[in-house]
Amino acid sequence: MNIVALAYPGFTLLDLIGPYTTLAELPRARAAIYWKQPGEILTDSGITIMAQRGFEEVPEQTAVLLVPGGGAGCRALLQDQEVLQWLARVGRSAEWVTSVCTGSLLLGAAGLLEGYRATSHWSAREDLCHFGAIPSQGRYVRDRNRLTGGGVTAGIDFGLALAAELAGEETARAIALGIEYAPAPPFEAGTPEQAGPETVARVLAKINSR
Amino acid sequence: MNIVALAYPGFTLLDLIGPYTTLAELPRARAAIYWKQPGEILTDSGITIMAQRGFEEVPEQTAVLLVPGGGAGCRALLQDQEVLQWLARVGRSAEWVTSVCTGSLLLGAAGLLEGYRATSHWSAREDLCHFGAIPSQGRYVRDRNRLTGGGVTAGIDFGLALAAELAGEETARAIALGIEYAPAPPFEAGTPEQAGPETVARVLAKINSR
Repeated sequence: MNIVALAYPGFTLLDLIGPYTTLAELPRARAAIYWKQPGEILTDSGITIMAQRGFEEVPEQTAVLLVPGGGAGCRALLQDQEVLQWLARVGRSAEWVTSVCTGSLLLGAAGLLEGYRATSHWSAREDLCHFGAIPSQGRYVRDRNRLTGGGVTAGIDFGLALAAELAGEETARAIALGIEYAPAPPFEAGTPEQAGPETVARVLAKINSR
Repeated sequence: MNIVALAYPGFTLLDLIGPYTTLAELPRARAAIYWKQPGEILTDSGITIMAQRGFEEVPEQTAVLLVPGGGAGCRALLQDQEVLQWLARVGRSAEWVTSVCTGSLLLGAAGLLEGYRATSHWSAREDLCHFGAIPSQGRYVRDRNRLTGGGVTAGIDFGLALAAELAGEETARAIALGIEYAPAPPFEAGTPEQAGPETVARVLAKINSR
């Protein structure tokens, strides 16, 4: 069961690590991180990770294509034909075409979400219209074999839901226990409604300054 | 505000990335990943990250010492005097001495939890007794300037609580909105009580086989 995860300069590491951790635990899973070529990738938190494989090494059968989001790094890729063509090629034959956060914009730009309901980071959800997708609210949204997660930390809920689809709920529950996933936020501020207009304005200003 | 995060071979990447993402967002934060020497570190999910600095580069003033957990990689370090002495030295002067998951065992082995209440991954919490700590239940546990998180995903709740301590709740709420932290687990199985005895036995067998 090949898990093909994209990484790229400036992507948000937590978008990827949440679901990667859950999916890599699955029986028979072979997960790897892909970029144009193997080597160092600087993520938007300042941490550098290694892409293990280059675009030409993609396996013949892909169970999951997983695309994380990011800020400026993600927007730059919306114009990168090499990346979009690779995503389109892998996505056409993958059993599951998935994303976390603004990764759904990349799936959209690659033509993989036309006519599909999908979600994204709350600040970017409506941008999915530009690609013929139907923006939908939800911690994660499934439409046929497309599964898209909301912003950053939604990747953990998304990853466990996908693990249940791939290997059954009992296995996914064991993974949830292994990563002690019984969240208890110290305050409720994870959605625009919970956070309130002042905090929303503050966060949007920060996002737009990047 | 220096955030000094330890990494080591076989550590659990998600333990670190949750809080690292929240803390690196703080105003004036300077976060970096330390190991004996800079360079590649293979984590327990199979992803390789780069340690940015070596042990001798630690800053004079440390706001937060952050230690992630892991399986066999963590247990190996419990006997590594170079690591334990470094942790003791940094921890003695750090404003906050913190851990996620089994990282608290390393703090304990370095003598930093004697007489403190602390937590860990549910499967390792009672082991804290060996180091003179007082095992306590909680998604995260604060005792004076020690803040220890539970297993893996507890690092996000822990990181937001610590962000609020360091920079105030308004800033921490903005970070929570930025990472869309409104968790919605697809099923409740993140604690031994929620998961039930069969799933607990399955996960313990897997942990002990590593």
